[in-house]
This record gives sequence, C-alpha cells and structure tokens, in this order.
Amino acid sequence: MTNDKTLTSSGFYVSQEAPIQTDNPVPTPQAAPPDILRCAYIELVVTDLKRSRDFYVDALGLIVTEEDEETVYLRTFEEFIHHNLVLRQGPVAAVAAFSYRVRTPEDLDQAVAFYTELGCRVERRADGFTKGIGDSVRVEDPLGFPYEFFHEVEHVERLAWRYDLYTPGALVRLDHFNQVTPDVPRATKFMQDLGFRVTEDIQDEAGTVYAAWMRRKPTVHDTAMTGGDGPRMHHVAFATHEKHNILSICDKLGALRISDHIERGPGRHGVSNAFYLYLRDPDGHRVEIYTQDYYTGDPDNPVVTWDVHDNQRRDWWGNPVVPSWYTEASLVLDLDGKPKPVVARTDSSEMAVTIGADGFSYTRQGDDAGELPSWKQGEYKLGHQL
Amino acid sequence: MTNDKTLTSSGFYVSQEAPIQTDNPVPTPQAAPPDILRCAYIELVVTDLKRSRDFYVDALGLIVTEEDEETVYLRTFEEFIHHNLVLRQGPVAAVAAFSYRVRTPEDLDQAVAFYTELGCRVERRADGFTKGIGDSVRVEDPLGFPYEFFHEVEHVERLAWRYDLYTPGALVRLDHFNQVTPDVPRATKFMQDLGFRVTEDIQDEAGTVYAAWMRRKPTVHDTAMTGGDGPRMHHVAFATHEKHNILSICDKLGALRISDHIERGPGRHGVSNAFYLYLRDPDGHRVEIYTQDYYTGDPDNPVVTWDVHDNQRRDWWGNPVVPSWYTEASLVLDLDGKPKPVVARTDSSEMAVTIGADGFSYTRQGDDAGELPSWKQGEYKLGHQL
Amino acid sequence: MTNDKTLTSSGFYVSQEAPIQTDNPVPTPQAAPPDILRCAYIELVVTDLKRSRDFYVDALGLIVTEEDEETVYLRTFEEFIHHNLVLRQGPVAAVAAFSYRVRTPEDLDQAVAFYTELGCRVERRADGFTKGIGDSVRVEDPLGFPYEFFHEVEHVERLAWRYDLYTPGALVRLDHFNQVTPDVPRATKFMQDLGFRVTEDIQDEAGTVYAAWMRRKPTVHDTAMTGGDGPRMHHVAFATHEKHNILSICDKLGALRISDHIERGPGRHGVSNAFYLYLRDPDGHRVEIYTQDYYTGDPDNPVVTWDVHDNQRRDWWGNPVVPSWYTEASLVLDLDGKPKPVVARTDSSEMAVTIGADGFSYTRQGDDAGELPSWKQGEYKLGHQL
Amino acid sequence: MTNDKTLTSSGFYVSQEAPIQTDNPVPTPQAAPPDILRCAYIELVVTDLKRSRDFYVDALGLIVTEEDEETVYLRTFEEFIHHNLVLRQGPVAAVAAFSYRVRTPEDLDQAVAFYTELGCRVERRADGFTKGIGDSVRVEDPLGFPYEFFHEVEHVERLAWRYDLYTPGALVRLDHFNQVTPDVPRATKFMQDLGFRVTEDIQDEAGTVYAAWMRRKPTVHDTAMTGGDGPRMHHVAFATHEKHNILSICDKLGALRISDHIERGPGRHGVSNAFYLYLRDPDGHRVEIYTQDYYTGDPDNPVVTWDVHDNQRRDWWGNPVVPSWYTEASLVLDLDGKPKPVVARTDSSEMAVTIGADGFSYTRQGDDAGELPSWKQGEYKLGHQL
Repeated sequence: MTNDKTLTSSGFYVSQEAPIQTDNPVPTPQAAPPDILRCAYIELVVTDLKRSRDFYVDALGLIVTEEDEETVYLRTFEEFIHHNLVLRQGPVAAVAAFSYRVRTPEDLDQAVAFYTELGCRVERRADGFTKGIGDSVRVEDPLGFPYEFFHEVEHVERLAWRYDLYTPGALVRLDHFNQVTPDVPRATKFMQDLGFRVTEDIQDEAGTVYAAWMRRKPTVHDTAMTGGDGPRMHHVAFATHEKHNILSICDKLGALRISDHIERGPGRHGVSNAFYLYLRDPDGHRVEIYTQDYYTGDPDNPVVTWDVHDNQRRDWWGNPVVPSWYTEASLVLDLDGKPKPVVARTDSSEMAVTIGADGFSYTRQGDDAGELPSWKQGEYKLGHQL
Repeated sequence: MTNDKTLTSSGFYVSQEAPIQTDNPVPTPQAAPPDILRCAYIELVVTDLKRSRDFYVDALGLIVTEEDEETVYLRTFEEFIHHNLVLRQGPVAAVAAFSYRVRTPEDLDQAVAFYTELGCRVERRADGFTKGIGDSVRVEDPLGFPYEFFHEVEHVERLAWRYDLYTPGALVRLDHFNQVTPDVPRATKFMQDLGFRVTEDIQDEAGTVYAAWMRRKPTVHDTAMTGGDGPRMHHVAFATHEKHNILSICDKLGALRISDHIERGPGRHGVSNAFYLYLRDPDGHRVEIYTQDYYTGDPDNPVVTWDVHDNQRRDWWGNPVVPSWYTEASLVLDLDGKPKPVVARTDSSEMAVTIGADGFSYTRQGDDAGELPSWKQGEYKLGHQL
Repeated sequence: MTNDKTLTSSGFYVSQEAPIQTDNPVPTPQAAPPDILRCAYIELVVTDLKRSRDFYVDALGLIVTEEDEETVYLRTFEEFIHHNLVLRQGPVAAVAAFSYRVRTPEDLDQAVAFYTELGCRVERRADGFTKGIGDSVRVEDPLGFPYEFFHEVEHVERLAWRYDLYTPGALVRLDHFNQVTPDVPRATKFMQDLGFRVTEDIQDEAGTVYAAWMRRKPTVHDTAMTGGDGPRMHHVAFATHEKHNILSICDKLGALRISDHIERGPGRHGVSNAFYLYLRDPDGHRVEIYTQDYYTGDPDNPVVTWDVHDNQRRDWWGNPVVPSWYTEASLVLDLDGKPKPVVARTDSSEMAVTIGADGFSYTRQGDDAGELPSWKQGEYKLGHQL
Repeated sequence: MTNDKTLTSSGFYVSQEAPIQTDNPVPTPQAAPPDILRCAYIELVVTDLKRSRDFYVDALGLIVTEEDEETVYLRTFEEFIHHNLVLRQGPVAAVAAFSYRVRTPEDLDQAVAFYTELGCRVERRADGFTKGIGDSVRVEDPLGFPYEFFHEVEHVERLAWRYDLYTPGALVRLDHFNQVTPDVPRATKFMQDLGFRVTEDIQDEAGTVYAAWMRRKPTVHDTAMTGGDGPRMHHVAFATHEKHNILSICDKLGALRISDHIERGPGRHGVSNAFYLYLRDPDGHRVEIYTQDYYTGDPDNPVVTWDVHDNQRRDWWGNPVVPSWYTEASLVLDLDGKPKPVVARTDSSEMAVTIGADGFSYTRQGDDAGELPSWKQGEYKLGHQL
C-alpha cells in the first residue's frame, strides 16, 4: 500500500485523503452539487404488497404513516418526515429511487443543473413522486442509479418517546444505502463530486478497490459503493438503539418461523465498527439492521483502509460472509420504471480473492492460510465451489 | 403557550422556530460567526490532580493521551483528536475553557472578528493554549464564559476497535457542555447568532424560559443554557454506546466505595430522550454520562418545548431532581485565570416552581398536586425546605 | 458483630450460619415441614379489577391464562403452571395468599400436620382455592400470614420461545415475595423450621436484625422478612432477563403518563446483587421487577450480612430509599377474607437508624456523616421530617 | 413421534417423561446414587500452560485463585468454591475430570458404592486430587468418562460485587458440561439412574436420539449427552449475566486478533432458549459462553423434544452449525491419565441427516428443502462435501 497510510494497532490503515484513484472518471460538472443532508428514504417495488407489509410492519415493526391499495409509507421511531421506506406493488422487485433530502428548496435547482450538465436524464415534479413529499427531482445518475432529491416534506410526529409502541427490536432511523457498481473508484470519484466524503474502504496491495463508504451526515455513511455487477442495490439499512434490539429481531423471526429471512449475522463489522444483521425481504431485497458506528463529521476525519485479505474487515469476529451476500442484489429501475441492464464487474471480486481455492484471508497479518484452525478451513476453503 | 406550538401525543409541544424571545439581546455582530463543528474539549482546573486522575482514569476509564506534573490530557475511545478533557492542577476548582473545533483555520479569524466586534476580550495563540492543539482563540464571551476555538490539532489513534481496552462503562465520545446563565433567552439569542440551533427548551405558560438546548453537530446539543446564577458550568457530558454501560459505571463506583460521586440518576431524560447519569468529580465538577439522543441535522428539525410543570421533562420516569442539581455548579475563569463573579438569576427558578410549598408538578396534564400518590408527595413537597 | 463473620473486600460480612438469634421463638413442630419447591403465585385482592388488569396486562405485559368477571389469572413468559398472579376483585386491597408449590401431593399432608401442630388455622380444598390448581392447603401461619401450598396444577404452554409476543419489558418468572413482620429473628427462625435457608440479612452492631432473605429454590430468596408493622406484604417480585428490560418498563410507564407508579429505582441492590425497580400498582400493592441475583444452592452457601449503616446495602449506588418504601405495605387477609390486624414493630426501625436527625449512614466504613457531600446531605438528613 | 408428545406453538414437542428408551442399558445399581448438587469444575490437560492461561485469564477474564508451575486454578465471579476450572500442563490435550459437588461428605460413600457395584474403577483420596478440594472420589464411569465427586472445598471470596474487576465479558458461573457418547439413550438412562432428570432432547421420527440435556440444579442442564464418537468432551460452558457480555467477548477476540478462536455463534439456541457462543481454546478444547436458559426445578417440568430436521433446534435463527462442531471433541483420560479409546457412533449422525446431499432441514414443518432461499441453500447443501 502507498506510504501515506499508517498502520494502526487494530490492523487497518488510516490516511488523510481517500486513497482511491480512477482512470475512468465521470467528468466533474461546473455546476455545484446540491447540498445533501442525508439519505432519507428508499422506494422499493415489491411483487406481493401484503407479504411485504407483513414483513416490514408485523415482523420488523416499522410505523405505517399512510397506505393505500398500491403503496405503504413507513417510517422509523425517531423520524419526523413522512417516510423512510415506500413499498409499492409492481411486476418486478426493484429499487425505484434512492432518495436524499437537501438543505433548501433551491438545492433542487442545483441538482437539475448538476445532472443536466452530466447529460443525465432528469425529471422534476413540483408535487413530488410520492405522497408526503413536495417538489422533487429524480435522475438516472452516471452510474445508472435512480437518485431522488427533495426538500419539502410533510412533518409527522416523531414517536421517539412513545415507548408504549416500541417492540423489542424497534427501528429508530434510516441509516444508509449500499449500491453495487462494477467500478468502485469511478463511482467514488463521482460521489465525491456530489459532495460525499469517503470514510472507509477495502483495497488490496495492488490498489484494487473492492468497496468504499461515504457520508454526508456525520456517520460512517449515507451510502456505500460495493464492487460487483451493477447498477444494483446491495441493501438499505435501519438503525436500532442497542445491540440487543438486533438480537431480538432474530429471536422474533425464529418465533414466527421465518428465520430464513436471515442471510448473514448478527455480527460486528470491521468496517464502520457497527453491529449488524442482514435480512432478505420477501422479494429478496436485502435489509441491514445496524447500530453504533462513530462520528465522522470533522473535515479531517481519518479515512480507514482495510486490506481485502484481512478476515476481520467485514466481520470483526472473523465469521465468514455467505456467498449470496457477495453475489445477489436488487435491480434498479430507470425513470420509466424499467430495470436497468446490469454490467459485469471486470476487476477482481472480493469473494474470489478471499474465499476458496484462489482466495486467501488472514486473521493476523503474516499468517498464511495453512494456519487456519480446522473449524475455519471449511468455511473459507469451500467458497469456490459455490 | 403561543398557538404555533403543537401538543404531541407524548405531552410536550413542537414548533418550527424556537419559541424564545429576549428583551435584552446581545447585539448581533456584523461579522459572520466561525463555522463551529462541535464541542471538542473542556479544560477543568482541579485542586488535587492525583485524585482527579484517579476519578477520570481509574474509575471512569478515560484514555490518557499525555500527562505531566501539572496536567493530564484525556480522550474517549472514538476520538481521534488529542483530547476531550484537560485536567490542570490549580488553586480553585473551575472551568478554564469550553473548547469548540471549527471547520477551517480561517474560522479563527472570523472568531476574532466576531468577538472583537462585541467588545469581548480575545486572545489568540499560534501554538495553542494546551498541548496537542495549534492556533487557538480564547475569548470571554458576552455571557461571561471562557470559550475557545481551534482547528489545528494533533491526530491520535482512534481506539474504537480496541475492545481489549474497553471497560464495561467505556466512554466513547464527548457529547456536550451545559452552562448556567441567569438570562436564558438572552443567552439563547446570542448562541443563535453564533450559529447554534435550538432543539429543545423548558418554559412555563407565561413564557419564562428555564433552559434551552442547542446544537452544531446533529445531536440534541453541543451546549445547553440552564437558568441560574451564572456564568457557571453545569456539567460536561460523555457518551457511552449503551445504557448498560452507564449502569456499570454505577456498579463500579459502588465496588470502589465511592458511590457518593453519584448525584442524580441513572434515568431517562424527557428533554433529549437520552439515558443519563450525573456524577460529581472530586472537586464537585458535574459530569454527565449520556447515551442515545436523536438526529437533529435537518434545518427544520422540530423544536421540542416542555412545560416546566411536567414532571417527566427532566426525568421521563418522574423521579425527582435533587436540589443540588439545580443549585450547585462550577465557577468559570476569565482569561487571566481568575474566577468570574456570579450574577444571580432574577427570573423564577425551576426548582422553586416545581418542588415544594410553592411549586407544582404533574404527571398528567390536568392533574393537581393533591393527586400525587403518597410515595411521590414526600419527594416533591419537601423541596422548599432545602 | 460476632467474630465468626468475615469482612469481605466488598464491605459486607460473610458467615457460615445465619447469625440470627431469637428470644421469642415459635416452637419447632415435631412434624416435618412440607418439601417446598418455590414461591409459585400470589393472590391479590384489588378494588378495581379493570384498572389492575390495565396495569398488569397492558402496562407490564403479563400473560392472561384465563379470566372472568371477578378474577384474572396471569403468568410470566417462562412459566408452565397455570398462573403466578391472581387478581381478584374485592372490597379491600390486600393479599389473600402467598402460595408455594410443594414437591409431591403428600407434602400437603405434611403441611397440614406441621401447621396443625402449631395451632394454626388450616383449610384444605381438594379442588383448590383458585382455577388451575388442585388439592391445596391454606393456613394462617404463626406470623399471621396467609400461606398456601399445592402440588397439583394445570400445565399451560411455556411461552419462553414466543419472542413474537415479548414486549421490551417482558416478565419471565415470579422471583420472590417479601413480607413485613415486627420481629425478624422470630420470623426467620420459624421459616428455617419450615425448611428455608437464610442467604443474606441486615443487622446493626448490637445484633438488631432489620431484614432477612431466605430461599428454597437456589436463588437469593423465595421470600424475605422485612422488619416493620405486620403482618403485611412488602412486595411481590417478577424477573426479567436483562437490565434493559427493566429500564424499558420505566420508559413505557413514562410514555403512558403513569410514571407515578414508580416508587423507587431502578437501581442495583447491595443485598442480592440484583438489579431492581419498585412499582406501586393501582391499589398501592408494591411490585418489584428484578434481575440477576446469584446461585445459592450449595448447603454451605455463605450467608451475607450487611451493616444497617452501610449506605450501599439497599442500593449499591448509594441512592436513597424513599420513606414510603419503609413505611407502606399491603394488608394480608385471614382465611375468612378479613384483614389481619397489624402489630407495631418495637425494635429500631431501619429508616430511623439510617435517615435523618437520629440516623447515620456511611459510604465507606469509618466515615462520619459530616463527610457526606452536599448533594447527599439533603437526601439522608431529611428523612426524619417525613 | 409417539402420541404422548404435544406439539407447541413454537414448533417443538413437550411431554411429561423423557421419551427416550434404550435396548442396551447399563444395569441400575442397587446402591442409591450420591446426591449431586451441581457441576462444579472441569480439569483440562493443556499442552502449553502459558498459552492456555493467556486465553482463559487475559482474554476471557477468569479469576486466578491460585497457580503454580504446572497448574492454574480459575473461578468465575459468582463462585465461592476454590475453582471452576483447572488447567494442568500435560502431554496430550484432554479432560482429566468432570467434577460434581455432592450435598454431604457421606455422599462420597454412596458414590463409591454406586460405581463399585457397576464394576467401575474407583479411586478415593482424602486430600483430594486438586488443590482447594478435600475428600474426593474419581471414577471411570460405565460410559468411559472420568467423573469426580467431592463435598469438602475451600471457600474463597465470591467476587460478585467487585464490579471494579469486571471486564465487559465477565464470566459469572460454570453452567454445564457436554459429553460426546455413541449411544445417547444408553447414556441418558445411566444418568437418570445417577439422579439426573432430562429437560430437552433431539430426536427423529424413528425415535433415534441425537442428543439429550439433563440437570441436577434447576437449569436446563448440568451436562448433556451428544451423539458421536466417544467418550469425548464436547464442551464446558460458562455463564455471563447478559447477551452483550457475550458479544463483547467476540469484540475483544477481534481486537486481540485471535478471532479464529470463535468456532460457532453467537446465536440463540433452540434447545435451552439460551444465548450462546462457542470458542476453541489453544488446544482445541471447546468452551461455550452461555446465558439465560430457564428454571427447570419442578419435578414435572415439561420435557422438550426437538425434531432433528427442525432447522431452529440448535440455532433458533436458523444459522448453520459448522461441521467441526459436530465432529471435533476433546479426548478424556482414564484414572491413569491415559486417553480413553474412542468408540464410533453407529446410529445416524445429526450432521448427516440435516446437512448436505443426504440431509434435510426445514424452517417450517411441511416445507421441503427445495423451498430454501438461495442464501440458505449453500449453507445446508454443502455439508456433505466436508
């Protein structure tokens, strides 16, 4: 790795600037980007609205702000805007919009200018694309993702103090999105132009970037770019207050005999230091439950770089990542509602370089794979058969 | 209360603008305020450095970045700047500086201009006032408090992943300050001019403001103004990850037979919705341990107003506030290191209007004090004897 | 204290035999006592069944096994017998029975013989006194308490795995009773004859016993004897899994605006080392929520003796005990359903010797009361005015 | 399954008597068994005492009662007897003794009679086999395991209140052993003769028993019998107070870069309803960290029977069991210190019937394996390749 990275006592590196370069950048627009506050909501197309509602409302306990035959608008306990999740009945499971709130109404003009200059398709609706939200801009961004920006929004009651309504696994905030894209450096550079700052990434010694995390609000991320065939949505994440809340979600899924919605975890991330769980909804959309990352709001917040071979990067406890977590993701829609074609990643895949016959992971730098204890060998050596 | 406040289902009010007016404002400077990132550290003068170190390091588990005969520099587990707390041996227990980090080096010029225009005493040191910190500005602000601003700072390792070093009550962030001032509306207006936004306050039906919370980073506060004889420091607060971490601090103080450092709590705040504990250090400086407030970063984040008579405003469980919590606070120093004279509050005191013979608190709006159960009567009716 | 007690590093004493002597014993019967398994349920007479049901079912989340116009039968999540709590509508709030399960049906014959020999009133019903329970013996014991013994019981589903039904404050077990009696040594000796073993007690240097804890199942207690005017019921206690469950009960009572049900806590006990909360139900019956005491099942389990002046004995964090907790308790009924007359305690009262003008408490042995910090003085010196 | 089992709403069965029959019983002795209180300690032979001490003391935080060149005696925070774990340096990693405490000194005579009648090798030492323990009996039991019984023991301070010594993952009790034996019904019947009561088991529809849990103290178990090549030790389990304590152990192993000690979990068991984690010590001895099972002390405590094909039986969240957990275990020693030969299991193996080409597991009864979501197929279908 380059010599401006400092090895920490925890085994990862820190640097001042994100150590990510791209040979294939999206041009930087002259227009200033909109001032984005935070990831605000995601719109998911689901193929069986009733089943999805059962999952998100009855099992996960999200709060219904409003609903009709075709659509359910859901929010978390600490939210005061109309929704953090829209479920919309449709023919193909996909993501219709990654939606961000901007600081002022005027930021929408900037969004239009920014994406128009990039040659992107841009659509603006004064009455918004969903209930509860006013003037909005939707774009197909240069990476192929449907992004939305809005400022005007209906305020609803923040139910943070309504402990009589809390379930043991209460979801209190939308935390972040995670997007799958073939070329992570290109995507990262574009997001930096949009005003995001990188907080962590995963690389190998040759500089291949496997994933990068980036933020507007001062948490580890509002979105992340995960290397893979894309554009696709890797997951959307909701936060709980404490770790036991996440465990109780698993317990409840067990009690409901739908534990097969659990894909990976719970565990502790290396990246972000957060506690996590990955679920798959009835359409296979991946949902993370997440708690306790750290403050990143200083402009010189150290960027953390993980070695792709560090077996604790994605799970601090060294528990294996299931192959589906690397390979499966949700389609995204264009502004006509048609699935975007998926482009294959050509760089090395993280799964290939870390699992199985061709892969290599270590617990301690300098160890070789032959030193894995017997109970770990199966886990990491089987991957190539999948 | 004025009619732009909306009563919520939780018993408090929300409004769009902080419903606080002052007849006695500090003039708003022409100069723009510095762009403050967050509260960063507090410098406490302590009268027995060894005893204070025992408390903050051995009992509370803060990390020693650096120390010498006269001074100990401490930080939290998730911090990457040199320190969050400076303990300095001195003759009188007091606060030497409330220190904030600003976005750029140039913000120090703005700080100088801003306070100079207000006629405040301003001192700038290119090498900083403490180790680990560069170019800094200290002022005696119009409210009488010693404020510091800096940008340059020595980076140290963020120990967030060093779970081998965590104690059961690990402190992970500096969360906020809390200042005592006689005229809360005047102080609030001044802080708004400095760029802070009010998130919550406590008022009575006549509009008397007893306390107000205000933020730069998107939590409930970076500092709060508490009505009382001032300028004094009410407390400094550190965050833990979870509630059990706070309970374990109490358990440990018990095991060390120094439980008399516990002044109030643990409990759940009404204001901020956070879980809390108040300790008093060996000099009587008050330290809060705090966890789990909510995101406030949107510009239209609803302002929460609590009725001073609502018995759940300061403790959501209705547990009484001990009188010392209202009356005792730390002196603050001027830039020569001399204690600032304390000016008496002339508005009603929160303690007087809520506890004892003249006071009144309710659990449910509309109840009268005569309806208190026997076990609550003693708690709330005795206050006036103290 | 006598020299067979060993001072521990935690500030209390341990000894092999309960250091409790009585000059006024209940005669030890020739008949062997019944083999008691555990405290099993309590029958409470309540004056407004609807209001009590709201409290125990809607607020606390106990499970309704069965109910009719006059009675509600409730159980905890891990219970497999019909009920742990019976609420029965009646004219005077009181305890109708402290009920224990015995090992075999034949133990009922032994219970009859044991109490008959003592001259107690004994009543046996082959069909039980409540639904769900078969052959039962009720007695007015020599201390004046209505005790019940039974073995036959209807099994119901243990809902321990039904996490879909859990609330954040789920109650999982009945843990213990606590009885108020004027003469603790006499009561303790009698309970030892009944087969209980003392686990902890509170004494002063003169040997006055203020309270004693005793067990059949291997926890700190199935019941305790608290010195005071009696016979009365001090409280009944239910267990949660973790401490946050108890905190969430407080949060919920706040959200329901019935936080005035909280009398004392939450806190950590010195005695038992458990985490606790005391509530008062709509009739004033005291309910403890309790978690995490320790295993006591070895016959030589060390008996812990606390000094009544140790301020951490009842709250390990040194938080004050509210006076009502010492003075208020529930009446108990005789077998005709009439309240038992209450006999005054003549020994020193724990409240008097520890709070206020005549009392004295220390945090560290050897300290004197004058050393209390200002925030503690009010708490402990005011007691005598109550 | 036989018709005296009742299907519960949680998907397992309950019955009154353990539904386990054996065609090949160990004869029931005429002599009464000793009255066993609880599992008390395990003696592990380790090949590198320093490394093992680092693991158990520095990483897991067990308390050193006493140690010398060859041996380390360790206990948990709530223990008052000399030790719960003995590490002894030796040439082959193995278990030297599963040790149980009995109620009285005389129970040792009964142990001698009981095992002598069975023709077992029995050795008694008035001064005990380890420091801190007096008169003891060791036997090679009919199943081939080295069992010890003792009553006399040195009392040491119970450090339950010493929160100043607690680490975030403090181990508070020895909870249970788990033994591997080829013929579970035979072993179960023998343990019932020794006075144990079955609490849970795993069977298939043909009545093959894969594992059974049995207790003396009123928890789910003091030991369990797991079907496999034996006699071997599957694991020894220590308890924490709460689930976050277990998570913090994982976090700490990650920070120490020894996360490869984690074999399985953390997770929620179906059997026992406890929260768990499995570690492997430096010699591969398996250690479980465990919390929150349920009270089983009533003589008619319902026996829980799990279907071997129920994918939530061993992990309530449906997470897969790693193959090593089924196949690897520790040797046990005979009374001369020589490893006991291992006899192969001839009944079906749980791994074979549940994982891979020949196996079948369901989340919901009636589902077939083809309905597994993609992310679960890999997990359960790959097993046969291992």
